[in-house]
Amino acid sequence: MLNNQETPVIYVDNSATTRMSQTAVAAMLPYMDKLYGNPSSLHSVGQQAAECLAEARATIAGLLDCTPAEIYFTSGGSESDNQAILSAAAIGERKGKKHIISTAIEHHAVLHTLKKLQKRGFEVTLLDVSAEGMVTAGQVADAIRPDTCLVSVMFANNEIGTVQPIAEIGAVCKEKGVLFHTDAVQAVGHVPVSVKAAQADFLALSAHKFHGPKGIGVLYARKGLPLVNLIEGGAQERGKRAGTENIPAIMGMAAAMKEACENLEANMAKMQALRDRLIEGLSVIPHSTLNGHPEKRLPNNVHFCFEGIEGESLLLLLDDKGICASSGSACTSGSLDPSHVLLAIGRPHEVAHGSLRLSLSEENTPEEIEYIIKAVPEVVNYLRQISPIWHDLQEGKKDHVI
Amino acid sequence: MLNNQETPVIYVDNSATTRMSQTAVAAMLPYMDKLYGNPSSLHSVGQQAAECLAEARATIAGLLDCTPAEIYFTSGGSESDNQAILSAAAIGERKGKKHIISTAIEHHAVLHTLKKLQKRGFEVTLLDVSAEGMVTAGQVADAIRPDTCLVSVMFANNEIGTVQPIAEIGAVCKEKGVLFHTDAVQAVGHVPVSVKAAQADFLALSAHKFHGPKGIGVLYARKGLPLVNLIEGGAQERGKRAGTENIPAIMGMAAAMKEACENLEANMAKMQALRDRLIEGLSVIPHSTLNGHPEKRLPNNVHFCFEGIEGESLLLLLDDKGICASSGSACTSGSLDPSHVLLAIGRPHEVAHGSLRLSLSEENTPEEIEYIIKAVPEVVNYLRQISPIWHDLQEGKKDHVI
Repeated sequence: MLNNQETPVIYVDNSATTRMSQTAVAAMLPYMDKLYGNPSSLHSVGQQAAECLAEARATIAGLLDCTPAEIYFTSGGSESDNQAILSAAAIGERKGKKHIISTAIEHHAVLHTLKKLQKRGFEVTLLDVSAEGMVTAGQVADAIRPDTCLVSVMFANNEIGTVQPIAEIGAVCKEKGVLFHTDAVQAVGHVPVSVKAAQADFLALSAHKFHGPKGIGVLYARKGLPLVNLIEGGAQERGKRAGTENIPAIMGMAAAMKEACENLEANMAKMQALRDRLIEGLSVIPHSTLNGHPEKRLPNNVHFCFEGIEGESLLLLLDDKGICASSGSACTSGSLDPSHVLLAIGRPHEVAHGSLRLSLSEENTPEEIEYIIKAVPEVVNYLRQISPIWHDLQEGKKDHVI
Repeated sequence: MLNNQETPVIYVDNSATTRMSQTAVAAMLPYMDKLYGNPSSLHSVGQQAAECLAEARATIAGLLDCTPAEIYFTSGGSESDNQAILSAAAIGERKGKKHIISTAIEHHAVLHTLKKLQKRGFEVTLLDVSAEGMVTAGQVADAIRPDTCLVSVMFANNEIGTVQPIAEIGAVCKEKGVLFHTDAVQAVGHVPVSVKAAQADFLALSAHKFHGPKGIGVLYARKGLPLVNLIEGGAQERGKRAGTENIPAIMGMAAAMKEACENLEANMAKMQALRDRLIEGLSVIPHSTLNGHPEKRLPNNVHFCFEGIEGESLLLLLDDKGICASSGSACTSGSLDPSHVLLAIGRPHEVAHGSLRLSLSEENTPEEIEYIIKAVPEVVNYLRQISPIWHDLQEGKKDHVI
């Protein structure tokens, strides 16, 4: 929010994590110190918790368009992605099918799990994406082989915001009899998501991406699909995910998801308007480029590359101006390697380093957007003035790439 | 608490889960909707979260007697147990050591992980326990073979409360060069726990057992020990546990653990007095027996078997009287099999079915204990009157076992 402090705090890193909504906090609180029972306990305090758990499961199932028995509560998106992929791989392995198709721009929760499977003898095809970060159902169809057991394509990209043609990809998988998983961590609560429409066999989501609590997520697994346990122990989650159920977080997640889905259209319209104004305002910066698809993108995602600068310095100077943004994925910050997503859409290394992701929420205001539109060019200009690369570009010692 | 409602609610199922303390709730709240940053984000909101994460890690490390770099945040005790055992197994496997020693009375988070390893060719020795549920360092020493890679012995049993001679077992493991893991989920915050004193290489704990939040736990792993990832993805927890850090829960856990450890002696003394009065009061019930060690037991654990009755009916009738108790582990409720712990200490099937666990917290009062001492014999008597087995025992058609 823009407030009366000297430095305003404008939070535009909502793809990293979000502020919990008041609805979600209020839904969570009673279960911390009042209705604190263990749903596995037979007594009334436990059974009250069990009833709330069942209600939350039904709420989330309704919002995802599936049955409560297809919902498994996990500790978050990464765990859900891991369990979905390892489960599909185990199903494939039993049939002698050890080929998996995914894309070059997946989250590391998917890519690293696939690497683990490669060590176990699985073959992985990572589909290339277009310059806008798109993969097509045709590409998926062409890549499917008789030994393909799984297609895993993210619903929307966490860095550049491109939304994939998930229903078409799901239809191809269904037709060819191949399991389909979608990492919908950035999509749920931001664009319409239905496992039926997606024809998905598995889907992963994470509550803290839509103003719910951290440390809680969902794995949707179509009825009848056997899951591989990541965590062994008690019989929670129908024996597929051990550990006392995190009732407060589950209640907070259900409330946040309901709120996000009920206000989806209004929020999408609001964020899309802010997003488009931001894209328009930043596009005037010379030698800049918007990353991701111009239309098929998350309503809250703005992602640019600016030639001649370092993304990290850009972030730190924007932070000085009260703007909390990101260069890409929070999960890979600290790494000096350029983003695998930007490389996959064809950005050269030196351009990929100068990236900026602004991920909005419905809490952002037009005033904040105008402040950002003023601040970013100032900081980019300043950094270019002190950049040896930029000087080389200006003096013609190097050619502009964008 | 005993209150003015018609039915008092007396919660004595604290080994299943606890009410969050006000301190823990207060420590958690600011991180839900104010300091909600992702610690991997470079901006100030993220870095503030990163600093709090570091502080919480240092607090917990101090309380466990280790360094912050040895603390890994997980989603709870089960995940920590799984990761500890699988990591030790991987270390062993690389050296050609595929023998693991544990006990017959471990939690299923341990036992089921060991089963998984057996399928991968590991050999598992489950040590018998005494009638009081004790295992000795001598037994461990005798069972260690040249190919033993891990000893996993729980600090305190979740059903019968027996506290093992962990320091002695740790010393034996150290001397023989075998890794030592202890599932301390029921011990931390209830009895003194130090990884140095225990000479443990791995230790698992869970926050919701000591008035902290659900869905958060710790895996302690001694410096230099390589961990196997259960959850792949981002580089959180030094690359060993992917997923956005659950800062609110971590802050709540650190506060609860600090509170529990700072008040440990006073709480132990208080609970021990309540426990001993409860044991004394229930011991007068004929054909009953206390399970677990008479002295070396958790200060909050009371566990009895009553001949001739079903534990489930006992729980339901006690619940009618406002007493929330358990027959044993909440994690295995719903199972019709008698407790593996009770069978391991030599209780016959029919006696094992008539079990009652009363697990106290420092919130319980002497008045509540007296209420329980009055209520339990009434319910046991009533159930015996309608029990065909009890009638057979009374008429001499069967012999009393206890």
